Amino acid sequence: VDLVAEVLEGDRRALAKLISLIEDDHPEARAALAALYPHTGQAQIIGITGPPGSGKSTLVNALAKHLRGQSIPVGIVAVDPTSPLTGGALLGDRVRMRDLAGDSGVFIRSMASRGSLGGLARATSDVVKVLDAAGFALVLVETVGAGQSEVEVAQAAHTTVVVEAPGMGDEVQALKAGLMEIADIFVVNKADRPGADAALRALHMVVGRDGASGEACAWRPPILQTVAARGVGVSEVWEAIVAHREHLRAGGHWVEQERERAMAELCDILRRDLLRQLLTRLGEDTFQRWVERIAAREVDVYTAARLIQEES
Amino acid sequence: VDLVAEVLEGDRRALAKLISLIEDDHPEARAALAALYPHTGQAQIIGITGPPGSGKSTLVNALAKHLRGQSIPVGIVAVDPTSPLTGGALLGDRVRMRDLAGDSGVFIRSMASRGSLGGLARATSDVVKVLDAAGFALVLVETVGAGQSEVEVAQAAHTTVVVEAPGMGDEVQALKAGLMEIADIFVVNKADRPGADAALRALHMVVGRDGASGEACAWRPPILQTVAARGVGVSEVWEAIVAHREHLRAGGHWVEQERERAMAELCDILRRDLLRQLLTRLGEDTFQRWVERIAAREVDVYTAARLIQEES
Repeated sequence: VDLVAEVLEGDRRALAKLISLIEDDHPEARAALAALYPHTGQAQIIGITGPPGSGKSTLVNALAKHLRGQSIPVGIVAVDPTSPLTGGALLGDRVRMRDLAGDSGVFIRSMASRGSLGGLARATSDVVKVLDAAGFALVLVETVGAGQSEVEVAQAAHTTVVVEAPGMGDEVQALKAGLMEIADIFVVNKADRPGADAALRALHMVVGRDGASGEACAWRPPILQTVAARGVGVSEVWEAIVAHREHLRAGGHWVEQERERAMAELCDILRRDLLRQLLTRLGEDTFQRWVERIAAREVDVYTAARLIQEES
Repeated sequence: VDLVAEVLEGDRRALAKLISLIEDDHPEARAALAALYPHTGQAQIIGITGPPGSGKSTLVNALAKHLRGQSIPVGIVAVDPTSPLTGGALLGDRVRMRDLAGDSGVFIRSMASRGSLGGLARATSDVVKVLDAAGFALVLVETVGAGQSEVEVAQAAHTTVVVEAPGMGDEVQALKAGLMEIADIFVVNKADRPGADAALRALHMVVGRDGASGEACAWRPPILQTVAARGVGVSEVWEAIVAHREHLRAGGHWVEQERERAMAELCDILRRDLLRQLLTRLGEDTFQRWVERIAAREVDVYTAARLIQEES
């Protein structure tokens, strides 16, 4: 519990150690998380997502620098779901480190999936809680990729920023359809490049259309422009983040989000614990025999699942 | 069971109906899947994935046309994990339909996530089995996006084709690190564009490096070039798919894959069933009280999960 006290004081080595324990699913991690949990709930969690090449890392970096100018402690979690087999670290970290190194008010951690896909989301959520408890008022969670991971980021964040860039082709336009639904703030980054106007127009059309059918006090996602590499437009992104927080707080959505997040996490943990127990009761050999029977087409997987539950 | 007989004959309306039942998680779907299951195991399942804009759909289309020229029945499942909230259909279907319409040897289905993320993977796997049972010798599963979804595609496929295109930027290069590990075949599409040589070189470097440390009889992913929009290089992709199938069959990997897939599916179904039963025993009110306590920071989620299991 020494570790917990050190984390609460924001000790960087303690933070790094606890996060490693979380990644290894070490029993000590659960105990520490339980002790830290009452100290959470202060941070605003920001998910940053969007297609590859849109400049998410650069924007995260610029945002962190902007906040450090205001002495706001910032935690950054960079999630890379595309490397499930290596457990390798994320690109761009060296770039980040160069700009933000030596600032004790910034903590940066890359996370890659080490085993199950669900494990990464689980660990990321726990790391965010640790940073929250350690006093980082803002936690930026960046996801590389353009798939299911966005949706998970959105579920774990108070505010989701979707980053685009001009001229990314038709398929990216279509991806937008999925991103539209999770975006609280849109950013067209690299806005000094050709095609920025078209990208902005396309976003305005979709947001405008949705806004028309929404409730009066609904949040209408602002559409911002940045040139993150030069810091242009970054303060406006920060203002939008603050505005969204006020919106969440005023409408009771903040509390509602907390509840939804708690429910999703609880279900996730229960699912995994329950399966582990069933497999222990059943025994490895019996389980493997069922797997063989399914692979041999003697029984289908749904029937097998039913029979296993009746048996155990 | 009329439906099952019709599906086995390849009746298109029956196929469409059963797939809808699967998507709705209808009880009748489980019964039909159980009856169809002994008829599965014939099809080679090909996952096609890669970053947005690489031309996956065009390649899938070109491959399907090539196979139809050889009278091979082709099923195409286009999975869109980026639209979890609308349940909307996938882009590109109209393009596909135009080229392949009226050919009874092709069946195309788009699938979007309707609820849980896990639900989509579950339903996709079931739809692939239906197409397998209906006699489609080749089932192409295409995923839009560049995230966790690739990995799920790879897990559900015998052969994973990773499609790239020239000049997609640094971040895409980095994504490759994740895709490298799941690729059985690499395709640089749009190979008539500037930058194709660089993309090929980069891939050759990575594959070469991995090959050096691999076993003697290990599969070394071929790196192919296509201009799918004009059908260029498509027959070579098909030859590589056939060669990979022979490799899997010869080395016993095919059977091993079947077993791994059966195990993953069984665990997934058990997890969901077990949670549902626990929640039924616990009751909605008690469960909601636990969620409230977690959201109020009275108890952390791991402790809550443990106490719930002790209690119920």
